Amino acid sequence: MATLKVPATVPPVADDCEQLRKAFQGWGTNEALIISILGHRDAAQRRAIRRAYAEAHGEELLRSITDEISGDFERAVILWTLDPAERDAVLANEAARKWQPANRVLVEIACTRTSAQVFAARQAYHERFKRSLEEDIAAHVTGDFRKLLVPLVSTYRYDGPEVNTRLAHSEAKLLHEKIHHKAYTDDEIIRILTTRSKPQLLATFNHYNDAFGHRINKDLKADPKDEYLKTLRAIIRCFSCPDRYFEKVARQAIAGLGTDESALTRVITTRAEVDLKLIKEAYQKRNSVPLERAVAGDTSGDYESMLLALLGQE
Amino acid sequence: MATLKVPATVPPVADDCEQLRKAFQGWGTNEALIISILGHRDAAQRRAIRRAYAEAHGEELLRSITDEISGDFERAVILWTLDPAERDAVLANEAARKWQPANRVLVEIACTRTSAQVFAARQAYHERFKRSLEEDIAAHVTGDFRKLLVPLVSTYRYDGPEVNTRLAHSEAKLLHEKIHHKAYTDDEIIRILTTRSKPQLLATFNHYNDAFGHRINKDLKADPKDEYLKTLRAIIRCFSCPDRYFEKVARQAIAGLGTDESALTRVITTRAEVDLKLIKEAYQKRNSVPLERAVAGDTSGDYESMLLALLGQE
Repeated sequence: MATLKVPATVPPVADDCEQLRKAFQGWGTNEALIISILGHRDAAQRRAIRRAYAEAHGEELLRSITDEISGDFERAVILWTLDPAERDAVLANEAARKWQPANRVLVEIACTRTSAQVFAARQAYHERFKRSLEEDIAAHVTGDFRKLLVPLVSTYRYDGPEVNTRLAHSEAKLLHEKIHHKAYTDDEIIRILTTRSKPQLLATFNHYNDAFGHRINKDLKADPKDEYLKTLRAIIRCFSCPDRYFEKVARQAIAGLGTDESALTRVITTRAEVDLKLIKEAYQKRNSVPLERAVAGDTSGDYESMLLALLGQE
Repeated sequence: MATLKVPATVPPVADDCEQLRKAFQGWGTNEALIISILGHRDAAQRRAIRRAYAEAHGEELLRSITDEISGDFERAVILWTLDPAERDAVLANEAARKWQPANRVLVEIACTRTSAQVFAARQAYHERFKRSLEEDIAAHVTGDFRKLLVPLVSTYRYDGPEVNTRLAHSEAKLLHEKIHHKAYTDDEIIRILTTRSKPQLLATFNHYNDAFGHRINKDLKADPKDEYLKTLRAIIRCFSCPDRYFEKVARQAIAGLGTDESALTRVITTRAEVDLKLIKEAYQKRNSVPLERAVAGDTSGDYESMLLALLGQE
C-alpha cells in the first residue's frame, strides 16, 4: 500500500553518499539529485545512507541538508529522511510544545501506528529531547485535552486479534449512555478509547452502529465546531478508517486559498511507506481528481517534485 | 547488592534439567534438590533451564513444579523461576484483578523498576494475558486510585540523569500548595508523580524539604490511615529509598501474629537479584535482628529453606 518507488537495483550506499555530497557542494545545490536519491530509498536504506554519510564526511546528513536547502522543501526532505520513529518524535514534540486544540498530530501518532511503533517513537523522544513525550504533553496541554491525550499516547495497547463480544456490547452501551447525556469528557469514554485494543474498539463501534442505528461519530457531532468533539471523532476515524482520515487531512490542506504545507508534508512523508496508495484512492474517489494533480496544482518547485516523488510519480 | 548465591562452577544446563526431573519423579518429591538448583541460578540460567527442560521432557518446568509442590513453597519457587518481567506481569495481574486500596504491588512495580523493566513487564503482560496492564487496571480500579495508578504504570519515564533545577523548585512549590490545601487528588500532583523522571523527582522532593522545612511525606501524613495518602507516600518512598520501602514491607509481613507470606515471598523473589543485601542491612538496622533470623522464626519447612537460599544463606 506504499507509494514509495525504490529502483530495482539500488546503488551501493557509498555511491549514494558521494552523489549527495556532490549535490550539496559547489555553487548552488543540485536539488533534483537529492530528490532522485532520498526520494527513492526506503527507511532502512536511508538509515544506512545517514550512517555512511556521517562516517565519510564527519558531518550529519541532516545538517548538510539543512545548510543547503530551506523552507517547505527542506522540511519535507528532513522529515522524510528521518527514521519513522524519530520523525514521529519530532512531530509529537512540535505538537506538544505549540499545542492548540485544533492540532491532531498527537491523535494521529497515537492511533494510526502499531503499539510497537508508538513505543519506538516514545523511545526516540527520550533520546532526542531528554524528556518523555507524556511529560511534555502533560506540562503543555491542559484541561479536558490533557485528560484525553496523555493516556492516549501513554498506552501500550494489546495488539492481538482477540475480541470480547460481550465487552464490546457493554462498552458500546456505556459509550452511548455517556454521549446521550453529553458527558463527552467522562472518565469511562476516555478509559475505553485509551486502553482497549484496536480490534476490540472496532467491535465496540460496530455494535454501537447495530444497536443504536447510527455510527458513534454521528452522535459525536452535536456541536460540529467543538474541538474536543472533533478530537474524539479523529481518534475514532484513525482507528476505523485511517486512509479516509488522512484523505481528509490532505483535502483540507489543499482546499481553499493557500495550502497547509505542514499538514500536506506530514501526510505524505508519514504515509508514503505505509498506506499512501489507499489514501490516493480515497482522494480520487472523494474529489474526482488524482491527489498528485491536486498537489501539483497547489505546490511548486523542488517541494512539489519531492512530494510527487513520494507520491510514486515515475 | 544481590543476595543470590550462584556456585562458582555451574553444572551444564542439561544436568540441571536431569536433576530437576529426578527431584519430581518417583514417590515423593526431593524439595531440597529443587532448592539447591533453582535457588542458586540467576535469571539467564533459569531461563536456559526452562527452555532446555521443555525441550527434553515435552512439559513446561513450571507445570512440573506446580504438579509436585504446593502452598507457599510452590508460590515462592514459581515466582522466583519466572523471568523478572513475567513475574512482574503475574504480580501486576493479580493486583489489578483483586484490587483493593491497601495493595501496593502496582506502585512497587511502577516505581522501583527501571523504565525499560516496566515496559518489559507490560510486554510480558500482553503475551500472557492477551490484554494490556493499563486496560485491566482501568477496568478494575475506580475513582481516585484509578486516576493515579493508570498513568503510573503507563508512563515511560525518561531515565537520563538530567535535572532541571528551576522546574524542581516550581514543582516543589506546586506540590506544597496542593498538599497544603489538602488537594491530594489534584491533577497536578498526579501529573508530576506520574511523568517526571526519577532524578527530577528526587530534586523536587529535596527542594521541598529545603524550602518548607520537612519532608513531603510528613505533609502527606495528615490522616495516617487514609489508603490514598498511604499510596502517595509509598510512591515517594519507592522513588527515594526503595531499600527502606521494602524493609518496611518485610517488617510488616513478619510482625505480629501470623505472617503475610504473599508479601514476604514477593519482596524476596523480586529483590534477591537486585538489592536484597541493602534491604537486609536496613532490616538489621531497624529491627536489631538479621532478616534471615526473622524469616526463619516466622516460616518453616521447604518454604523457609527456599527463602533462606534466596536471602543468601550458605
